[in-house]
Amino acid sequence: MALLDDSSTPHARLPVRPEHAGFAPYGAPQLDVPILLNVNENPYPPDDDVVRSVAADVADAVRGLNRYPDRDFLPLRSDLADFLARESGVRLVPEQLWAANGSNEIMLHVMQAFGGPGRAALSFAPTYSMYPEYARDTATRWLTIPRRDDFSLDVDAAVEAIETSAPAVVLIASPNNPTGTAMTLEGIARIAEAAARVTVRDPDGTAAGCGVVVVDEAYGEFRRTGTPSALELLGAHPNLAVSRTMSKAFALAGARVGYLAASVDLVDALRVVRLPYHLSGVTQAVARAALRHADVLLAQVDELRARRDETVAWLRRQTRAGVPLDVVESDANFVLFGRFDDRAEIWQGLLDRGVLIRVVGPDGYLRVSIGTAEEMTVFRSALVEVAGL
Amino acid sequence: MALLDDSSTPHARLPVRPEHAGFAPYGAPQLDVPILLNVNENPYPPDDDVVRSVAADVADAVRGLNRYPDRDFLPLRSDLADFLARESGVRLVPEQLWAANGSNEIMLHVMQAFGGPGRAALSFAPTYSMYPEYARDTATRWLTIPRRDDFSLDVDAAVEAIETSAPAVVLIASPNNPTGTAMTLEGIARIAEAAARVTVRDPDGTAAGCGVVVVDEAYGEFRRTGTPSALELLGAHPNLAVSRTMSKAFALAGARVGYLAASVDLVDALRVVRLPYHLSGVTQAVARAALRHADVLLAQVDELRARRDETVAWLRRQTRAGVPLDVVESDANFVLFGRFDDRAEIWQGLLDRGVLIRVVGPDGYLRVSIGTAEEMTVFRSALVEVAGL
Repeated sequence: MALLDDSSTPHARLPVRPEHAGFAPYGAPQLDVPILLNVNENPYPPDDDVVRSVAADVADAVRGLNRYPDRDFLPLRSDLADFLARESGVRLVPEQLWAANGSNEIMLHVMQAFGGPGRAALSFAPTYSMYPEYARDTATRWLTIPRRDDFSLDVDAAVEAIETSAPAVVLIASPNNPTGTAMTLEGIARIAEAAARVTVRDPDGTAAGCGVVVVDEAYGEFRRTGTPSALELLGAHPNLAVSRTMSKAFALAGARVGYLAASVDLVDALRVVRLPYHLSGVTQAVARAALRHADVLLAQVDELRARRDETVAWLRRQTRAGVPLDVVESDANFVLFGRFDDRAEIWQGLLDRGVLIRVVGPDGYLRVSIGTAEEMTVFRSALVEVAGL
Repeated sequence: MALLDDSSTPHARLPVRPEHAGFAPYGAPQLDVPILLNVNENPYPPDDDVVRSVAADVADAVRGLNRYPDRDFLPLRSDLADFLARESGVRLVPEQLWAANGSNEIMLHVMQAFGGPGRAALSFAPTYSMYPEYARDTATRWLTIPRRDDFSLDVDAAVEAIETSAPAVVLIASPNNPTGTAMTLEGIARIAEAAARVTVRDPDGTAAGCGVVVVDEAYGEFRRTGTPSALELLGAHPNLAVSRTMSKAFALAGARVGYLAASVDLVDALRVVRLPYHLSGVTQAVARAALRHADVLLAQVDELRARRDETVAWLRRQTRAGVPLDVVESDANFVLFGRFDDRAEIWQGLLDRGVLIRVVGPDGYLRVSIGTAEEMTVFRSALVEVAGL
């Protein structure tokens, strides 16, 4: 019999796992500020026609909410397949698609299915700051190797790390967050082949299978003309998955719909670990209505890409004390720029002027999301003033 | 360097975790049948006023969907606290409430926060068949001890099991699924005290804290008059949590809203493991609108409870080959009855007559959810015919 030996505390202490102790809940500050350029949202709310159409579909769904939702949501998966065919020219069957409450739930499913205790996940730093949390929450060992100085991924080094550590999951954000850097298809293919060659072993030595590679294309729709999507590689690589989201280009961050495309086998492994009915009837209705209006919802993507390119160009023309800013190439709806010895002060100075951006990524850098033309004008003026450009 | 040694397969094999291998995705069959009495749904869809009101609120939410939702959703947590105060007379502060996409995501948060590798969760069989899946998906060791023959919980045996195995999490469904059996407050208090006394140790011997007890009151609103809610015990037991859902009494299974009430410390530990923005802006809007209409949505609870009692009484009057049926006392919106040597045949016979119930629980038993008066009439006639009562 185990008696509590912590008698110094008035209440028994809760058994918080050691890897969570002292952690604050993840998330950028949610501040009430006029100009929000901190979490890579799309600045354009849905127009009235879309709102009416989505609300009408939701009303229909509400009529049946006393029943559980369709657990396998093949109609939504079919709509997602149709959308990807239009967006990237790659035709998949509905059973190759998966969806969840945001792409972070997609990643959780991937880690639960293939990662977990005794297994490792590999990624390439700096990258999306949630990735180590997915690993932590699933007791997956977290490994990173550094990107090059320009934040591109060194494919030779990646292949070597895969061969050395045999990770069950390799996570590649492309375009990468927070740097905006996209991968080449050749690089992704070499990494997928390397992962297919290794043997993931469980602690007892059993060969579990090869490694799985997830290319996180959360910002895929913002890629520059000529930058391909990893969707094109799916046919040749059954251990490859591409995750996408409706949060960014689709301007539906509040709806929480992430999705993934892969081989049917890979998707079926995710179906085993998903909580039953994880995608509500309302979420399914919103996603399907939004996909029907994809052309309208994505109409501002070209404008945002052009403004992203302008923002990169403008930042590159700026100097501080005679030194040009370092501005990273971007295929996303944000730009990483630096380096500032005083980035926290610059962030605060912008915030004082009503502009919220993000302190994230390597030392000295700041990330700004692409907002409306008016918002970017205010951002530029405020930055000139605060940083003394 | 680890090379793939599974050269007999045409494709590299995916590294599915051994505990998932061969598992089908969880869930009762979703069949297109006139009378659905298989997953304890509320048979009454929301009325037109509620549908209009929910849809209007969702339309408002859709206008802002380009932004991420409120990550901490205190307005919803406040509404839930108000509802519980009305329903059970227990007043909690909003920070004592938590919500997620169904109570199964609530349970996942609990297991991620307090369970996991090197830790155990204890429950009392037969009980809800998802519990071992929560343990499996979080690599938590799963322990059960049996209930008594009448499916009541032997509190002495439970206390002994807690003292012996020092589980990090104790899960008690009350009313229990699939048996309908509710616990006494005295029993729950003794179990919470036993869990508070034990020391959960991590594999390295470190004392992590005491055990956490979750009382799953998914069916709580259907409890018989005089059956109390474990909410009344929260003040005295900081290691106790009560989970609830809007899926059953609220008739909102399709909306996927589960919630939990506990000490602020316990809730804060869940906030660390939740995926950021796990609860969509639409889900928050639907839940808040539904809570505003709680009186209407819960109006049929009394009717369903009365019909449940009638169903128990009717089943108890039935005999088969001279032997009375065994019908379990129920505080839920379903009834477990048996015992049938041929339960699969009886299930199929009912299905052939358009009535879908559930093969679940101990050998020989079947579970029927309480539907409308008309649905229960059809169920009774079909059962008489199929089972030869």
